[in-house]
Amino acid sequence: MASVEELQRKVRELEVKLAAAQGTTGPVRQKIDVMSSEVVDSNPYSRLMALKRMGIVDNYEKIRELSVAVVGVGGVGSVTAEMLTRCGIGKLILFDYDKVELANMNRLFFQPHQAGLSKVDAAAATLQNINPDVTIDAYNYNITTVENFQKFCDTIRTGSLTGGSVDLVLSCVDNFEARMAINTACNELNQKWFESGVSENAVSGHIQFIVPGETACFACAPPLVVASKIDEKTLKREGVCAASLPTTMGIVAGFLVQNTLKYLLGFGTVTHYLGYSALTDFFPTMGLKPNPQCDDNYCRIRQKEVQARPPVVELATEVTEDDSPVHADNEWGISLVDENVPEEEPTNLNLVDGVQLAYSVPVDNETPESSTGGAVAASELSLEELMKQMKSM
Amino acid sequence: MASVEELQRKVRELEVKLAAAQGTTGPVRQKIDVMSSEVVDSNPYSRLMALKRMGIVDNYEKIRELSVAVVGVGGVGSVTAEMLTRCGIGKLILFDYDKVELANMNRLFFQPHQAGLSKVDAAAATLQNINPDVTIDAYNYNITTVENFQKFCDTIRTGSLTGGSVDLVLSCVDNFEARMAINTACNELNQKWFESGVSENAVSGHIQFIVPGETACFACAPPLVVASKIDEKTLKREGVCAASLPTTMGIVAGFLVQNTLKYLLGFGTVTHYLGYSALTDFFPTMGLKPNPQCDDNYCRIRQKEVQARPPVVELATEVTEDDSPVHADNEWGISLVDENVPEEEPTNLNLVDGVQLAYSVPVDNETPESSTGGAVAASELSLEELMKQMKSM
Repeated sequence: MASVEELQRKVRELEVKLAAAQGTTGPVRQKIDVMSSEVVDSNPYSRLMALKRMGIVDNYEKIRELSVAVVGVGGVGSVTAEMLTRCGIGKLILFDYDKVELANMNRLFFQPHQAGLSKVDAAAATLQNINPDVTIDAYNYNITTVENFQKFCDTIRTGSLTGGSVDLVLSCVDNFEARMAINTACNELNQKWFESGVSENAVSGHIQFIVPGETACFACAPPLVVASKIDEKTLKREGVCAASLPTTMGIVAGFLVQNTLKYLLGFGTVTHYLGYSALTDFFPTMGLKPNPQCDDNYCRIRQKEVQARPPVVELATEVTEDDSPVHADNEWGISLVDENVPEEEPTNLNLVDGVQLAYSVPVDNETPESSTGGAVAASELSLEELMKQMKSM
Repeated sequence: MASVEELQRKVRELEVKLAAAQGTTGPVRQKIDVMSSEVVDSNPYSRLMALKRMGIVDNYEKIRELSVAVVGVGGVGSVTAEMLTRCGIGKLILFDYDKVELANMNRLFFQPHQAGLSKVDAAAATLQNINPDVTIDAYNYNITTVENFQKFCDTIRTGSLTGGSVDLVLSCVDNFEARMAINTACNELNQKWFESGVSENAVSGHIQFIVPGETACFACAPPLVVASKIDEKTLKREGVCAASLPTTMGIVAGFLVQNTLKYLLGFGTVTHYLGYSALTDFFPTMGLKPNPQCDDNYCRIRQKEVQARPPVVELATEVTEDDSPVHADNEWGISLVDENVPEEEPTNLNLVDGVQLAYSVPVDNETPESSTGGAVAASELSLEELMKQMKSM
């Protein structure tokens, strides 16, 4: 006969299973009208509102008025959306057109029972359960087709809680075309956005803050202007796939949302480019100036608008807690873009350690042996070397 | 206390409810005997096995033989456990004695429907659904009591898949006593472990690799040896709580698991101390030598054992892809521990930017105004300043 201890364990076990089973249908927490600082077990916002008492954020409640679009709800985008949801963002707008697969289970967020569902629908359901206070819109289409691109632009332009532009667009896509579509839209709409990416070998990644006219756009930097049709679907058809790790993708999502919070809530310093090289725990940062000869017409228009403006402090953010020296990575004001940059062969990329391309380097379809490796892992160069070169100029 | 009959009735009742609730949920995936590299949508390991083709990891399948203990399944520990589960770790052993609350919903992993469940049981159920190939043991007790400490040591010593020591212990706890208990156990058992922590103001964190006798243990460094009774429960009783963010905790968990993977699978370089300062995106690294006068007797024994060993390359890891310069943070071989360190007043801590204490600084219970701030946010000093001081010595 079972002992009391065994039965108690069994009861606990069944309670957990029951809660899990009910999770998809059962009751979730009620909506909360006003964010409270009260320290009780039932308040999901107490640890966030404590940021005010700690002197980090002046007005945390402001987050409920803000809207963020997340484009791509894969390994980085899903975790990005979850972090923003748990932080209590006012509105999330999700874009993706892919389905959940078991092959995605090596990254955070999606679970096996969601295999076969559309990523945006599955994500929206999970996120709404986690925080019913967030308004979540989910769009299940490919933003790069002509028709959908216009719908995408309209949604960015009118998607805020008050019918205006969203406060920020976060790019979490895995291919060049989608990044170019976001770039084109954001230049035209004068919309601030973050680019993010993870390398095909899974051990590096980056985020980049793009302010049209003020910082390099995705079309500004020559090494980025490379035609590529390689995305995950193409790779899969060839029987290969990029490597990925929940660690690298979770870290990149963390960097992305942390800098999003710093920008939206006005604390700390927003980093313009932050890289992550997992093998050596190296974190390059740099500034990227816009290219006056950028191919994107709206980028050049935004640059002229910025030049015509009276000078202001760059970015509406300030360090509220800490005025200690920043990691001195960029005393030369490194810019990968320059008026004198020659139009080089894009195949001869001169990138280095800790700095990787935001997307796949194109593979010549006529050389099958090179395509078995999928997209080529970005070549890498050290920021130290880059700085040495700048210094000797 | 409930009788056996009452408990049996409760079990039957729950079983009926569970069957009804499960009718609405889909099946989870079946166990997989052998990790495959095949690129099909149904293979949850294709993106991990691709690390071999990419030249990052020689033998990824080895992960199935390895066992990791995660102590503390809160904001950092739960994400740590999920990452390891999705990576296909052989065995996970979870320790915690807390319950899930809605107040935890500002961090990743737990969901509102799990409120009230024990953290280890709720985590084990979710993780087992995500990856049924992982063996998961969950222990719902406080490791710091005398009786439980012995059970904890025995589990670490015999918890591997083959009945030996686990391969690594990951500390994800939120208080000093638990860290000291893990430190004591690991010194005695000669067990390698990682310490991790996040500051009370939610905007910094760190991980630290501790190899008994080779690197500073948790009791070695004087600023760390401070009596503290402040944990989250104590803070809550006083009507205050530490701030926390899903970003910072996700990033620290990512660093922890990434370095765990590098150590266990032998790629890249394992970082001994990696800090994260969110406000400025600053990532201090350093080395920490053991203190020959450490209070922990087993630490001193391990140091003598290491000294008696023929010299070997430190850490059984190597850079497989990349021999570029590591972030040059530590050319002075900074050690916070020194034979000549005076026994200073622990309240007069001289820490700086990017380096924070692994736990709460003690608050004098007799001064209520200081305790309303919860544990004091660790004072901070810049690594640059520290290096300048070292240089001028």
